[in-house]
Amino acid sequence: MGKLVLVRHGKSLWNVKNVFTGWTDIDLAPEGIEEAKIAGELIKSNLIDIDICFSSYLKRAIRTAWIILETAEMMHVDCKYSWKLNERHYGDWQGKNKDEVLNEYGEEFFLNVRRGYDTPPPSLPTFDKRCPEYDSNYKALDSSILPLAESLKDTSKRVINYFFEAIAPELAQGKTVLIAAHGNSLRALIEFLEHISTEDIAKLEVATGIPHLYEFDAKLNVIDHHQLK
Amino acid sequence: MGKLVLVRHGKSLWNVKNVFTGWTDIDLAPEGIEEAKIAGELIKSNLIDIDICFSSYLKRAIRTAWIILETAEMMHVDCKYSWKLNERHYGDWQGKNKDEVLNEYGEEFFLNVRRGYDTPPPSLPTFDKRCPEYDSNYKALDSSILPLAESLKDTSKRVINYFFEAIAPELAQGKTVLIAAHGNSLRALIEFLEHISTEDIAKLEVATGIPHLYEFDAKLNVIDHHQLK
Repeated sequence: MGKLVLVRHGKSLWNVKNVFTGWTDIDLAPEGIEEAKIAGELIKSNLIDIDICFSSYLKRAIRTAWIILETAEMMHVDCKYSWKLNERHYGDWQGKNKDEVLNEYGEEFFLNVRRGYDTPPPSLPTFDKRCPEYDSNYKALDSSILPLAESLKDTSKRVINYFFEAIAPELAQGKTVLIAAHGNSLRALIEFLEHISTEDIAKLEVATGIPHLYEFDAKLNVIDHHQLK
Repeated sequence: MGKLVLVRHGKSLWNVKNVFTGWTDIDLAPEGIEEAKIAGELIKSNLIDIDICFSSYLKRAIRTAWIILETAEMMHVDCKYSWKLNERHYGDWQGKNKDEVLNEYGEEFFLNVRRGYDTPPPSLPTFDKRCPEYDSNYKALDSSILPLAESLKDTSKRVINYFFEAIAPELAQGKTVLIAAHGNSLRALIEFLEHISTEDIAKLEVATGIPHLYEFDAKLNVIDHHQLK
């Protein structure tokens, strides 16, 4: 059975702005580029040979993947991208200041959306230019399958779906797989891999830029996992 | 039937040195980076939506692919890499000055290797540290399948083999395919696509950084091809 390496992208240009990013396609900040280089160095110094790389449709994760592969001297590793590894879709809150959203919606709803499992933020109106159907990244896809807002549960479903659809078959062939993705999409995957309860998962913070290595038994149960150092 | 876009990488850091490069993994020069950006702009301004990208195992071609996709705002396009799209393997001449090789081997042999179809340069000795088996790029491959020197005919065989193995199936699904590769690997592909004779193929010069678009009928015959502008 293969190995799985998870890396959460580092600081983006919007992290400093205190706004909800979600599917907004914001690039890495210079610090995020440095975090990705460190992740690449760790993969190289731990002698991990990546066979295939997966990432989302968002450039902050894709650039993280590219920088990792270049730093680890593995630019020729095949890369596959899917919207199913995207960050959680933050609906109508995308691009809005978090403090203003808190004031507008009140603490209870705000915390339910952010830390609860089942509560999505308000959806994007279908005519909104922030909808995926107006974003060239998604033009090859049927927009009816794409979300306009997601609870963590919604994110979790499509991430785990994609894990079985695309990633588990590679692990079953003994491949070492790198996933460069986002706080909430990786949280969803970790919830599944480590059997974390839906109550506890929102508390889990995935460190940015630190590769997390999973090893499996023949039935795809995790037998060991640790951060690289 | 899908469309095919070929781009030859631009100037590398060794172009100025007048040495044989072949499989030596030399990066793009700043001018080569600019050439790739222009190729990306042309793909974007011609409204070509790439569905999948292929490149070689060599970073000057991979970086060309990455820059094109980033410039064209298509970073999320899946990328597959194969040594079968590498530049022609220049054997023991790799890293050697072209004028010195000409003096050492004489004009007839030199021209037969460079412009003939069947003549390989002298092979790398198997203990030579320039052999693919000592290069981390190739460590997942059985080194017995990798060349230690190639005639243009040898290069042509593995490129056309790869075209049928990996690229034609994508075209048959209606995909638009980008290949970012090298002078001799693209020359081999063009020889095949345009039915150019082995006598004439060595004279063909593939322009660097200019996307070349091919369209096909249902039997994979080329019905139109032109450079983008």
